[in-house]
Amino acid sequence: MPGEGELVGTVVTFEGELPKGYGRKKGNITELTLEEAAYLFEKGKITVREGDRILSLEEFFKVALERSPGFELRYLVYKDLKERGYYVKPSALNFRLYQRGSKPGEKPPKYSVLVVSERTPITMTELVKHLEIARNMRKSLIIAIVDEESEVTFYEAKRLELGNVGSEGVYTERYSSAGDDGSVPKSVVGVEKSTNVPASTLPARASLLEDRVVVWDEDTARKLYESEWFGKLSGGRLQLSLVEAAYLLRRGEITVEDASGKHLSFEEFVRTANSIEKDFGSKYAAYEDLRERGFIVKTGFKFGSHFRVYERREQPHSRYLVHVVPREHVFTMPELSRAVRLAQSVRKQMVFAYEDANDAAGAGGGEKAGAGSRRIKYVGVGRVKL
Amino acid sequence: MPGEGELVGTVVTFEGELPKGYGRKKGNITELTLEEAAYLFEKGKITVREGDRILSLEEFFKVALERSPGFELRYLVYKDLKERGYYVKPSALNFRLYQRGSKPGEKPPKYSVLVVSERTPITMTELVKHLEIARNMRKSLIIAIVDEESEVTFYEAKRLELGNVGSEGVYTERYSSAGDDGSVPKSVVGVEKSTNVPASTLPARASLLEDRVVVWDEDTARKLYESEWFGKLSGGRLQLSLVEAAYLLRRGEITVEDASGKHLSFEEFVRTANSIEKDFGSKYAAYEDLRERGFIVKTGFKFGSHFRVYERREQPHSRYLVHVVPREHVFTMPELSRAVRLAQSVRKQMVFAYEDANDAAGAGGGEKAGAGSRRIKYVGVGRVKL
Repeated sequence: MPGEGELVGTVVTFEGELPKGYGRKKGNITELTLEEAAYLFEKGKITVREGDRILSLEEFFKVALERSPGFELRYLVYKDLKERGYYVKPSALNFRLYQRGSKPGEKPPKYSVLVVSERTPITMTELVKHLEIARNMRKSLIIAIVDEESEVTFYEAKRLELGNVGSEGVYTERYSSAGDDGSVPKSVVGVEKSTNVPASTLPARASLLEDRVVVWDEDTARKLYESEWFGKLSGGRLQLSLVEAAYLLRRGEITVEDASGKHLSFEEFVRTANSIEKDFGSKYAAYEDLRERGFIVKTGFKFGSHFRVYERREQPHSRYLVHVVPREHVFTMPELSRAVRLAQSVRKQMVFAYEDANDAAGAGGGEKAGAGSRRIKYVGVGRVKL
Repeated sequence: MPGEGELVGTVVTFEGELPKGYGRKKGNITELTLEEAAYLFEKGKITVREGDRILSLEEFFKVALERSPGFELRYLVYKDLKERGYYVKPSALNFRLYQRGSKPGEKPPKYSVLVVSERTPITMTELVKHLEIARNMRKSLIIAIVDEESEVTFYEAKRLELGNVGSEGVYTERYSSAGDDGSVPKSVVGVEKSTNVPASTLPARASLLEDRVVVWDEDTARKLYESEWFGKLSGGRLQLSLVEAAYLLRRGEITVEDASGKHLSFEEFVRTANSIEKDFGSKYAAYEDLRERGFIVKTGFKFGSHFRVYERREQPHSRYLVHVVPREHVFTMPELSRAVRLAQSVRKQMVFAYEDANDAAGAGGGEKAGAGSRRIKYVGVGRVKL
């Protein structure tokens, strides 16, 4: 015979014994959230009345939804987690989720769970705010997305300090070599960041041809390609992308002339590149930051991202897919799902890069884009199977 | 000793013998396109002069680009195809590409190749136009995308008549079971389109709860789930998505009441759904069309698409990912690349659905959305390794 709880506003009060992990004790009364009460009700552990009226489960659901918008979503996530055997504390904001095997009272909850519908868009700024809140509570952030068919998928989001990541991430565990990454020059595999191309041959002469840059001299072309995998060799010439050319121009390793034969300064080149590619400024800033951190950075076009990023010691397969977004970027959940799914299907980690508003110098770089300024931040997002 | 061609405007004329497959014969003169001439020049088979002046390869490239915008892109694709051993006829519009092993004069070219930069957006309307043109020429359409690092990726686009496709597609060959498709009810696997749920239990009562619909009666819930895999069973209730609910409402298998207890007509339900999900109308039209063709249709959320689509005999893995777009949708190449890559990584075929402008009845269905109107068209896009 199940005990009877009483619905009072948006809580259910209960006198008597309940299984471990439900509600908050207040004297000999336990206060259950609507999600907890619904779960116990559905499992036949309690019944619920309001005043004199005994509620059916259907009535209880409808009243709960009326009083607590988003109840349906939160209940779907709560129930999913319970059925996976977790202890979880639901709330109107983020749920607190205990590590598997861990009970309330033993250790603090490990995760903060943000519940969203697949129809809920989220900006980069909001995502960063949730990360800050979770970090301040010393929890990891989990995003629980309820799709239109009421299935729940869990993603973990975390700040990454690229260069020293890898041991901590839940979703990096599956990393191993896979995917098709184009032909990595053998000379680059396993080599730590090389010394630059010998200065005697530099700067090399290059031309901007429509939306790409060509280095004409075969020796220099080969050296730039083989030392740090810049560009693509084609018949003795080197085809550089706009970000690669901007970076080499800034490092003084190439000069770039336009169709009229005029030599372009870094600033002029960036202006031209901006007219060809509208987000060139932030994309370049991330490219430079990654290169300065010692990564090899190539286009992620085949994976629908800006860059695929290699740690030298891990070649020939890239480890990260990096996509650069403005802080005001609005992620849709299907977009997030697609990017993460694709990255993980080729054993890479999906990373979103953005310029930190507190230190942004506007598009195009300029001096603030230089090495050491580190105004680019990285957020890794991966699906987790709880 | 290579022979000498003469650059005249945007062609190179050549007297003498050339390898098979280059240029157009006019008497004892061969007229080469700029791409053909550049390739032969680069390979050391010809030199080029203009008037009295002998051109260097660099000069030739720059002049070609100046006179023929897009030359650089076209040359990258032309060269790539040549180096893969194909015969190809370049032109300012689409290239004509011969099947592997086939030479000019033997059979007509099999493919029409559209050359684009990864920075070239393309609308659904344009894509459909290219498909029409290719079809009129009895060729298959290949889209050659040159990425920022000058790598070329080839995609084949084709109209699909869903329901009788499969043997013809280049990129469907790799289809086999893979991916994680959720739990398919065993009752549905291998069963041809079932008879509907027995009429005696219908229509079943359902409620719209925020952005989803719940069928309360356990027997009906189970029948709808097991007969055609509608919704998700959860504690004896059936959670339906908005498209599923609209479809069942239209078929008279459920009634839907809103939070106030009011029964919604199909039109009212569609209006409400439209306010929750902005592209509900076209999404529903495609859902209904696919269901009426006998497919099982579930959400494609985990793959970033609208639907995953099952042929009954092929379960438990879905065969297609279908994403519904308006005709004026602007595809970016990274978006196309991402969608196709993801679909193929889980052995599914990426399909874009749109409402045919000639027969569109506007959002929301109405009578024209009924079975048999077939105003939904499907375009499959897959990567091909040439």
